[in-house]
Amino acid sequence: MDLFFCPVVSEEASVVTLDEFESRHIARTLRKKTGDRIALTDGQGGHYSGEITSLKPRVRVHILERTKHDAPQPALHAAMGFIKPQRLEWALEKVTELGATDIHLIRTEHSGYGSANHGRFEKILRQALKQNQRFYLPALHLYKHIHMFIAAVQAVPQKFVAVDAHFPPLAGELQNEGDRLICVGPEGGLSQTEIGLLQDNGFKAVSLGPSRLRAETALLAGLSILRLL
Amino acid sequence: MDLFFCPVVSEEASVVTLDEFESRHIARTLRKKTGDRIALTDGQGGHYSGEITSLKPRVRVHILERTKHDAPQPALHAAMGFIKPQRLEWALEKVTELGATDIHLIRTEHSGYGSANHGRFEKILRQALKQNQRFYLPALHLYKHIHMFIAAVQAVPQKFVAVDAHFPPLAGELQNEGDRLICVGPEGGLSQTEIGLLQDNGFKAVSLGPSRLRAETALLAGLSILRLL
Repeated sequence: MDLFFCPVVSEEASVVTLDEFESRHIARTLRKKTGDRIALTDGQGGHYSGEITSLKPRVRVHILERTKHDAPQPALHAAMGFIKPQRLEWALEKVTELGATDIHLIRTEHSGYGSANHGRFEKILRQALKQNQRFYLPALHLYKHIHMFIAAVQAVPQKFVAVDAHFPPLAGELQNEGDRLICVGPEGGLSQTEIGLLQDNGFKAVSLGPSRLRAETALLAGLSILRLL
Repeated sequence: MDLFFCPVVSEEASVVTLDEFESRHIARTLRKKTGDRIALTDGQGGHYSGEITSLKPRVRVHILERTKHDAPQPALHAAMGFIKPQRLEWALEKVTELGATDIHLIRTEHSGYGSANHGRFEKILRQALKQNQRFYLPALHLYKHIHMFIAAVQAVPQKFVAVDAHFPPLAGELQNEGDRLICVGPEGGLSQTEIGLLQDNGFKAVSLGPSRLRAETALLAGLSILRLL
Protein backbone atom coordinates (compact mmCIF):
# COMPACT_ATOMS: atom_id res chain seq x y z
CA MET A 1 0.00 0.00 0.00
CA ASP A 2 1.29 3.52 -0.83
CA LEU A 3 2.51 5.37 2.21
CA PHE A 4 1.71 9.04 2.87
CA PHE A 5 2.95 11.59 5.33
CA CYS A 6 1.12 13.22 8.19
CA PRO A 7 3.42 15.10 10.58
CA VAL A 8 1.42 14.95 13.81
CA VAL A 9 -1.11 12.31 14.76
CA SER A 10 -2.19 12.60 18.38
CA GLU A 11 -3.00 9.50 20.42
CA GLU A 12 -6.67 10.41 20.53
CA ALA A 13 -7.27 11.66 17.00
CA SER A 14 -9.57 9.51 14.98
CA VAL A 15 -9.54 11.77 11.94
CA VAL A 16 -6.50 13.57 10.53
CA THR A 17 -6.20 16.21 7.81
CA LEU A 18 -3.24 15.95 5.46
CA ASP A 19 -1.29 18.97 4.25
CA GLU A 20 -1.61 20.51 0.82
CA PHE A 21 1.32 18.64 -0.70
CA GLU A 22 0.09 15.18 0.34
CA SER A 23 -3.53 16.04 -0.43
CA ARG A 24 -2.70 17.05 -3.98
CA HIS A 25 -0.65 13.90 -4.49
CA ILE A 26 -3.47 11.67 -3.27
CA ALA A 27 -6.42 13.46 -4.87
CA ARG A 28 -4.97 14.76 -8.13
CA THR A 29 -2.01 12.59 -9.05
CA LEU A 30 -3.23 9.23 -7.77
CA ARG A 31 -6.95 10.06 -8.10
CA LYS A 32 -7.91 8.29 -4.90
CA LYS A 33 -11.59 8.34 -3.94
CA THR A 34 -13.55 8.73 -0.72
CA GLY A 35 -13.63 5.33 0.98
CA ASP A 36 -10.19 4.25 -0.32
CA ARG A 37 -7.80 2.82 2.27
CA ILE A 38 -4.40 4.48 2.62
CA ALA A 39 -1.42 4.20 4.96
CA LEU A 40 0.17 7.11 6.79
CA THR A 41 3.32 7.70 8.77
CA ASP A 42 4.29 10.59 11.02
CA GLY A 43 8.01 9.96 10.43
CA GLN A 44 8.37 9.23 14.17
CA GLY A 45 7.61 5.51 14.01
CA GLY A 46 3.85 5.88 13.72
CA HIS A 47 2.16 3.79 11.05
CA TYR A 48 -1.56 4.31 10.50
CA SER A 49 -4.05 2.90 8.12
CA GLY A 50 -7.38 4.45 7.48
CA GLU A 51 -10.11 5.43 5.09
CA ILE A 52 -10.38 8.63 3.10
CA THR A 53 -13.48 10.50 4.30
CA SER A 54 -13.13 13.61 2.13
CA LEU A 55 -10.82 14.93 -0.59
CA LYS A 56 -11.44 18.70 -0.57
CA PRO A 57 -10.08 21.14 0.35
CA ARG A 58 -7.61 18.76 2.02
CA VAL A 59 -7.65 14.99 2.26
CA ARG A 60 -9.10 13.77 5.56
CA VAL A 61 -8.48 10.23 6.78
CA HIS A 62 -10.42 8.27 9.39
CA ILE A 63 -7.80 6.23 11.25
CA LEU A 64 -8.69 2.57 11.75
CA GLU A 65 -5.41 0.97 12.83
CA ARG A 66 -2.30 2.24 14.59
CA THR A 67 1.13 0.63 14.89
CA LYS A 68 4.30 2.05 16.41
CA HIS A 69 7.58 0.85 14.89
CA ASP A 70 10.74 0.71 16.97
CA ALA A 71 13.43 3.26 16.19
CA PRO A 72 16.11 1.82 13.88
CA GLN A 73 19.15 0.39 15.67
CA PRO A 74 22.02 1.20 15.52
CA ALA A 75 21.65 4.88 14.72
CA LEU A 76 23.47 5.83 11.50
CA HIS A 77 24.80 9.38 11.29
CA ALA A 78 25.75 10.95 7.96
CA ALA A 79 27.79 14.17 8.26
CA MET A 80 29.09 16.40 5.48
CA GLY A 81 30.30 19.92 4.80
CA PHE A 82 27.79 22.01 2.83
CA ILE A 83 27.94 21.46 -0.93
CA LYS A 84 26.13 22.97 -3.93
CA PRO A 85 22.35 22.86 -3.45
CA GLN A 86 21.60 20.51 -6.33
CA ARG A 87 24.10 17.90 -5.20
CA LEU A 88 23.13 18.42 -1.58
CA GLU A 89 19.47 17.72 -2.32
CA TRP A 90 20.40 14.56 -4.12
CA ALA A 91 22.55 13.48 -1.16
CA LEU A 92 19.67 14.13 1.25
CA GLU A 93 17.42 11.83 -0.76
CA LYS A 94 20.00 9.07 -0.95
CA VAL A 95 21.12 9.08 2.68
CA THR A 96 17.47 8.90 3.71
CA GLU A 97 16.95 5.87 1.44
CA LEU A 98 20.06 4.27 2.91
CA GLY A 99 18.61 4.57 6.38
CA ALA A 100 20.47 7.50 7.93
CA THR A 101 18.82 8.33 11.26
CA ASP A 102 20.64 11.66 11.55
CA ILE A 103 21.97 14.00 8.89
CA HIS A 104 24.53 16.63 9.92
CA LEU A 105 25.38 19.52 7.58
CA ILE A 106 28.35 21.58 8.63
CA ARG A 107 29.67 24.94 7.50
CA THR A 108 33.36 24.16 7.14
CA GLU A 109 36.41 26.19 6.06
CA HIS A 110 36.06 25.13 2.41
CA SER A 111 32.26 25.20 2.22
CA GLY A 112 31.36 27.62 -0.54
CA TYR A 113 27.73 27.28 0.51
CA GLY A 114 25.94 27.28 3.78
CA SER A 115 22.33 28.13 3.22
CA ALA A 116 19.58 25.73 4.05
CA ASN A 117 16.12 25.70 2.58
CA HIS A 118 14.42 23.87 5.42
CA GLY A 119 11.04 23.52 3.75
CA ARG A 120 12.52 22.04 0.62
CA PHE A 121 14.90 19.74 2.54
CA GLU A 122 12.00 18.46 4.60
CA LYS A 123 10.03 17.66 1.46
CA ILE A 124 12.96 15.69 0.00
CA LEU A 125 13.35 13.64 3.18
CA ARG A 126 9.62 12.93 3.28
CA GLN A 127 9.50 11.78 -0.31
CA ALA A 128 12.48 9.47 0.17
CA LEU A 129 10.88 8.05 3.30
CA LYS A 130 7.60 7.31 1.53
CA GLN A 131 9.35 5.78 -1.48
CA ASN A 132 11.32 3.67 0.93
CA GLN A 133 8.38 2.55 3.05
CA ARG A 134 10.09 3.57 6.25
CA PHE A 135 8.61 5.15 9.36
CA TYR A 136 11.36 7.34 10.81
CA LEU A 137 12.34 10.60 9.20
CA PRO A 138 16.05 11.37 9.67
CA ALA A 139 16.75 14.26 12.02
CA LEU A 140 18.41 17.10 10.14
CA HIS A 141 21.05 19.05 12.07
CA LEU A 142 22.77 22.20 10.78
CA TYR A 143 25.93 23.72 12.23
CA LYS A 144 27.59 27.08 11.62
CA HIS A 145 30.93 25.74 12.80
CA ILE A 146 32.60 22.34 13.10
CA HIS A 147 33.02 22.89 16.87
CA MET A 148 29.26 22.81 17.30
CA PHE A 149 29.04 19.58 15.31
CA ILE A 150 31.77 17.94 17.39
CA ALA A 151 30.01 18.86 20.62
CA ALA A 152 26.66 17.59 19.35
CA VAL A 153 27.87 14.10 18.38
CA GLN A 154 30.25 13.56 21.29
CA ALA A 155 28.26 10.59 22.63
CA VAL A 156 28.28 8.58 19.39
CA PRO A 157 30.65 5.66 20.07
CA GLN A 158 31.90 4.95 16.54
CA LYS A 159 32.89 8.12 14.72
CA PHE A 160 34.80 8.13 11.43
CA VAL A 161 36.12 10.85 9.18
CA ALA A 162 36.92 9.92 5.58
CA VAL A 163 40.31 11.38 4.69
CA ASP A 164 42.28 9.51 2.04
CA ALA A 165 43.80 6.19 1.01
CA HIS A 166 46.69 6.58 3.49
CA PHE A 167 44.30 5.61 6.27
CA PRO A 168 42.82 2.15 6.94
CA PRO A 169 39.64 1.20 5.06
CA LEU A 170 36.42 2.02 6.93
CA ALA A 171 35.08 -1.53 6.59
CA GLY A 172 37.91 -2.95 8.70
CA GLU A 173 37.47 -0.42 11.51
CA LEU A 174 33.78 -0.98 12.25
CA GLN A 175 32.61 -2.61 15.45
CA ASN A 176 29.41 -4.65 15.42
CA GLU A 177 27.87 -2.83 18.36
CA GLY A 178 26.88 0.77 18.79
CA ASP A 179 25.79 3.84 16.87
CA ARG A 180 28.06 4.97 14.08
CA LEU A 181 28.89 8.13 12.20
CA ILE A 182 30.70 8.91 8.97
CA CYS A 183 31.87 12.46 8.27
CA VAL A 184 33.08 13.64 4.86
CA GLY A 185 34.33 17.02 3.69
CA PRO A 186 32.59 19.42 1.34
CA GLU A 187 33.90 19.97 -2.18
CA GLY A 188 37.55 20.89 -1.63
CA GLY A 189 37.72 18.68 1.47
CA LEU A 190 38.12 19.36 5.15
CA SER A 191 41.12 21.46 6.13
CA GLN A 192 44.08 19.91 7.95
CA THR A 193 43.02 21.86 11.04
CA GLU A 194 39.50 20.44 10.86
CA ILE A 195 40.74 16.89 10.35
CA GLY A 196 43.08 17.30 13.33
CA LEU A 197 40.26 18.67 15.43
CA LEU A 198 38.03 15.71 14.60
CA GLN A 199 40.84 13.24 15.35
CA ASP A 200 41.48 14.94 18.69
CA ASN A 201 37.81 14.43 19.49
CA GLY A 202 37.46 10.71 18.95
CA PHE A 203 36.99 10.54 15.17
CA LYS A 204 39.01 7.79 13.51
CA ALA A 205 40.50 8.76 10.12
CA VAL A 206 39.62 6.20 7.45
CA SER A 207 39.76 5.56 3.71
CA LEU A 208 36.81 4.96 1.41
CA GLY A 209 39.00 3.47 -1.31
CA PRO A 210 41.73 4.47 -3.74
CA SER A 211 40.02 7.05 -5.92
CA ARG A 212 39.05 10.64 -5.16
CA LEU A 213 35.29 10.87 -4.69
CA ARG A 214 32.99 13.85 -4.80
CA ALA A 215 31.64 14.79 -1.37
CA GLU A 216 28.17 13.34 -1.92
CA THR A 217 29.54 10.15 -3.45
CA ALA A 218 31.87 9.69 -0.49
CA LEU A 219 28.96 10.16 1.92
CA LEU A 220 26.91 7.51 0.13
CA ALA A 221 29.79 5.08 -0.13
CA GLY A 222 30.57 5.53 3.57
CA LEU A 223 26.96 5.10 4.63
CA SER A 224 26.61 2.00 2.43
CA ILE A 225 29.41 0.45 4.49
CA LEU A 226 28.11 1.64 7.87
CA ARG A 227 24.67 0.16 7.31
CA LEU A 228 25.84 -3.29 6.33
CA LEU A 229 28.42 -4.31 8.86
CA MET B 1 46.88 19.54 -12.41
CA ASP B 2 43.47 19.49 -14.16
CA LEU B 3 42.95 16.46 -16.34
CA PHE B 4 41.40 16.63 -19.82
CA PHE B 5 40.18 14.07 -22.26
CA CYS B 6 41.59 13.14 -25.64
CA PRO B 7 40.12 9.92 -27.03
CA VAL B 8 42.95 8.71 -29.26
CA VAL B 9 46.62 9.47 -28.83
CA SER B 10 48.81 7.41 -31.14
CA GLU B 11 52.24 6.24 -30.02
CA GLU B 12 53.95 8.52 -32.50
CA ALA B 13 51.85 11.66 -32.20
CA SER B 14 53.69 14.61 -30.73
CA VAL B 15 50.80 17.03 -31.13
CA VAL B 16 47.11 16.24 -30.47
CA THR B 17 44.00 18.26 -31.17
CA LEU B 18 41.24 18.16 -28.56
CA ASP B 19 37.56 17.97 -29.44
CA GLU B 20 35.16 20.88 -29.30
CA PHE B 21 33.85 20.09 -25.81
CA GLU B 22 37.31 19.91 -24.18
CA SER B 23 38.59 22.86 -26.21
CA ARG B 24 35.78 25.10 -25.05
CA HIS B 25 36.29 24.04 -21.45
CA ILE B 26 40.01 24.80 -21.58
CA ALA B 27 39.92 27.99 -23.64
CA ARG B 28 36.68 29.63 -22.54
CA THR B 29 35.82 28.34 -19.08
CA LEU B 30 39.31 27.99 -17.64
CA ARG B 31 40.90 30.66 -19.85
CA LYS B 32 44.12 28.73 -20.34
CA LYS B 33 46.78 30.36 -22.52
CA THR B 34 49.26 29.16 -25.13
CA GLY B 35 52.28 27.74 -23.29
CA ASP B 36 50.24 26.49 -20.28
CA ARG B 37 50.91 22.90 -19.20
CA ILE B 38 47.94 20.54 -19.05
CA ALA B 39 47.39 16.82 -18.47
CA LEU B 40 45.42 14.54 -20.77
CA THR B 41 44.06 11.02 -20.62
CA ASP B 42 42.67 8.82 -23.37
CA GLY B 43 40.53 6.84 -20.91
CA GLN B 44 42.52 3.71 -21.80
CA GLY B 45 45.29 4.13 -19.24
CA GLY B 46 47.22 6.79 -21.14
CA HIS B 47 48.32 9.84 -19.16
CA TYR B 48 50.00 12.66 -21.04
CA SER B 49 51.30 16.01 -20.07
CA GLY B 50 52.06 18.71 -22.53
CA GLU B 51 51.99 22.34 -23.51
CA ILE B 52 49.17 24.19 -25.24
CA THR B 53 50.42 25.33 -28.66
CA SER B 54 47.21 26.92 -29.92
CA LEU B 55 43.68 27.61 -28.69
CA LYS B 56 41.67 28.14 -31.90
CA PRO B 57 39.70 26.69 -33.54
CA ARG B 58 40.51 23.73 -31.25
CA VAL B 59 43.04 23.38 -28.48
CA ARG B 60 46.26 21.72 -29.66
CA VAL B 61 48.71 20.22 -27.19
CA HIS B 62 52.37 19.37 -27.72
CA ILE B 63 52.94 16.18 -25.74
CA LEU B 64 56.06 16.20 -23.57
CA GLU B 65 55.57 13.19 -21.28
CA ARG B 66 53.67 9.91 -21.58
CA THR B 67 52.78 7.40 -18.88
CA LYS B 68 50.67 4.27 -19.15
CA HIS B 69 48.70 3.28 -16.04
CA ASP B 70 47.84 -0.35 -15.37
CA ALA B 71 44.19 -1.35 -15.72
CA PRO B 72 42.39 -1.37 -12.35
CA GLN B 73 42.26 -4.75 -10.62
CA PRO B 74 39.95 -6.44 -9.84
CA ALA B 75 37.43 -5.42 -12.49
CA LEU B 76 34.20 -4.04 -10.96
CA HIS B 77 31.03 -4.57 -12.98
CA ALA B 78 27.88 -2.52 -12.26
CA ALA B 79 24.72 -3.91 -13.92
CA MET B 80 21.20 -2.48 -13.81
CA GLY B 81 17.88 -2.56 -15.65
CA PHE B 82 17.18 0.65 -17.55
CA ILE B 83 15.68 3.42 -15.43
CA LYS B 84 14.44 6.96 -16.11
CA PRO B 85 17.03 9.00 -18.01
CA GLN B 86 17.65 11.57 -15.28
CA ARG B 87 18.33 8.95 -12.61
CA LEU B 88 20.27 6.82 -15.06
CA GLU B 89 22.60 9.69 -15.90
CA TRP B 90 23.21 10.34 -12.26
CA ALA B 91 23.97 6.64 -11.72
CA LEU B 92 26.45 6.64 -14.62
CA GLU B 93 28.34 9.51 -13.02
CA LYS B 94 28.45 7.88 -9.61
CA VAL B 95 29.45 4.37 -10.68
CA THR B 96 32.28 5.92 -12.70
CA GLU B 97 33.46 7.83 -9.63
CA LEU B 98 33.27 4.65 -7.59
CA GLY B 99 35.60 2.92 -10.03
CA ALA B 100 33.31 0.67 -12.08
CA THR B 101 35.34 -0.78 -14.94
CA ASP B 102 32.24 -2.00 -16.77
CA ILE B 103 28.68 -0.69 -16.78
CA HIS B 104 25.92 -2.97 -18.07
CA LEU B 105 22.46 -1.57 -18.87
CA ILE B 106 19.82 -4.18 -19.52
CA ARG B 107 16.34 -3.98 -21.00
CA THR B 108 14.41 -6.12 -18.51
CA GLU B 109 10.76 -7.10 -18.16
CA HIS B 110 9.96 -4.15 -15.92
CA SER B 111 12.13 -1.56 -17.66
CA GLY B 112 9.86 1.23 -18.75
CA TYR B 113 12.79 2.74 -20.63
CA GLY B 114 15.42 1.36 -22.88
CA SER B 115 16.81 4.14 -25.01
CA ALA B 116 20.41 5.14 -24.79
CA ASN B 117 21.85 8.48 -25.76
CA HIS B 118 25.38 7.27 -26.36
CA GLY B 119 26.86 10.69 -26.95
CA ARG B 120 25.47 12.09 -23.74
CA PHE B 121 26.37 8.99 -21.70
CA GLU B 122 29.93 9.19 -22.99
CA LYS B 123 30.18 12.82 -21.93
CA ILE B 124 28.97 11.98 -18.40
CA LEU B 125 31.52 9.18 -18.03
CA ARG B 126 34.30 11.44 -19.28
CA GLN B 127 33.43 14.24 -16.88
CA ALA B 128 33.32 11.86 -13.94
CA LEU B 129 36.67 10.39 -14.96
CA LYS B 130 38.29 13.82 -15.16
CA GLN B 131 36.80 14.95 -11.86
CA ASN B 132 38.05 11.75 -10.36
CA GLN B 133 41.57 11.94 -11.82
CA ARG B 134 41.38 8.42 -13.19
CA PHE B 135 42.74 7.06 -16.45
CA TYR B 136 40.33 4.31 -17.47
CA LEU B 137 36.88 5.06 -18.80
CA PRO B 138 34.35 2.37 -17.86
CA ALA B 139 33.18 0.25 -20.78
CA LEU B 140 29.45 0.78 -21.37
CA HIS B 141 27.49 -2.29 -22.49
CA LEU B 142 23.84 -2.23 -23.54
CA TYR B 143 21.60 -5.28 -23.87
CA LYS B 144 18.18 -5.71 -25.39
CA HIS B 145 17.53 -8.82 -23.34
CA ILE B 146 18.83 -10.29 -20.09
CA HIS B 147 20.00 -13.43 -21.97
CA MET B 148 22.54 -11.34 -23.83
CA PHE B 149 23.81 -9.84 -20.59
CA ILE B 150 24.15 -13.27 -18.96
CA ALA B 151 26.16 -14.57 -21.92
CA ALA B 152 28.42 -11.52 -21.93
CA VAL B 153 29.45 -11.72 -18.27
CA GLN B 154 29.71 -15.52 -18.05
CA ALA B 155 33.45 -15.42 -17.28
CA VAL B 156 33.20 -13.03 -14.29
CA PRO B 157 33.93 -15.24 -11.26
CA GLN B 158 31.97 -13.36 -8.56
CA LYS B 159 28.50 -12.43 -9.74
CA PHE B 160 25.78 -11.11 -7.42
CA VAL B 161 22.18 -10.11 -7.90
CA ALA B 162 20.60 -7.89 -5.23
CA VAL B 163 17.18 -9.30 -4.38
CA ASP B 164 15.95 -8.62 -0.85
CA ALA B 165 16.66 -8.98 2.85
CA HIS B 166 15.80 -12.70 2.82
CA PHE B 167 19.18 -13.37 1.22
CA PRO B 168 22.59 -13.10 2.90
CA PRO B 169 24.28 -9.67 2.94
CA LEU B 170 26.59 -9.01 0.00
CA ALA B 171 29.53 -8.07 2.25
CA GLY B 172 29.70 -11.56 3.73
CA GLU B 173 29.64 -13.31 0.35
CA LEU B 174 32.60 -11.57 -1.26
CA GLN B 175 35.86 -13.35 -1.95
CA ASN B 176 39.09 -11.37 -1.85
CA GLU B 177 40.28 -12.55 -5.25
CA GLY B 178 38.78 -12.07 -8.69
CA ASP B 179 36.60 -9.75 -10.70
CA ARG B 180 33.16 -9.01 -9.29
CA LEU B 181 29.76 -7.93 -10.51
CA ILE B 182 26.63 -6.57 -8.85
CA CYS B 183 23.32 -6.61 -10.72
CA VAL B 184 20.23 -4.70 -9.57
CA GLY B 185 16.76 -4.44 -11.06
CA PRO B 186 15.18 -1.40 -12.67
CA GLU B 187 12.39 0.52 -10.93
CA GLY B 188 9.85 -2.22 -10.19
CA GLY B 189 12.59 -4.82 -9.78
CA LEU B 190 13.64 -7.86 -11.73
CA SER B 191 10.89 -10.44 -12.37
CA GLN B 192 10.96 -13.80 -10.60
CA THR B 193 11.82 -15.41 -13.95
CA GLU B 194 14.76 -13.08 -14.43
CA ILE B 195 16.06 -13.66 -10.90
CA GLY B 196 15.76 -17.42 -11.42
CA LEU B 197 17.60 -17.17 -14.72
CA LEU B 198 20.44 -15.24 -13.12
CA GLN B 199 20.67 -17.73 -10.24
CA ASP B 200 20.76 -20.63 -12.72
CA ASN B 201 23.70 -18.92 -14.40
CA GLY B 202 26.02 -18.46 -11.46
CA PHE B 203 24.66 -15.28 -9.89
CA LYS B 204 24.39 -15.41 -6.10
CA ALA B 205 21.28 -13.72 -4.67
CA VAL B 206 22.22 -11.24 -1.94
CA SER B 207 20.78 -8.50 0.25
CA LEU B 208 21.91 -4.87 0.36
CA GLY B 209 20.26 -4.25 3.71
CA PRO B 210 16.82 -4.08 5.28
CA SER B 211 15.18 -1.18 3.45
CA ARG B 212 13.83 -0.98 -0.07
CA LEU B 213 16.19 1.06 -2.22
CA ARG B 214 15.64 2.76 -5.53
CA ALA B 215 17.46 1.05 -8.39
CA GLU B 216 20.25 3.60 -8.66
CA THR B 217 20.75 3.76 -4.89
CA ALA B 218 21.01 -0.03 -4.75
CA LEU B 219 23.61 0.00 -7.53
CA LEU B 220 25.70 2.57 -5.66
CA ALA B 221 25.39 0.80 -2.34
CA GLY B 222 26.35 -2.52 -3.95
CA LEU B 223 29.33 -1.06 -5.76
CA SER B 224 30.50 0.70 -2.58
CA ILE B 225 30.74 -2.75 -0.98
CA LEU B 226 32.35 -4.45 -3.99
CA ARG B 227 35.14 -1.89 -4.22
CA LEU B 228 36.15 -2.05 -0.60
CA LEU B 229 36.42 -5.70 0.24
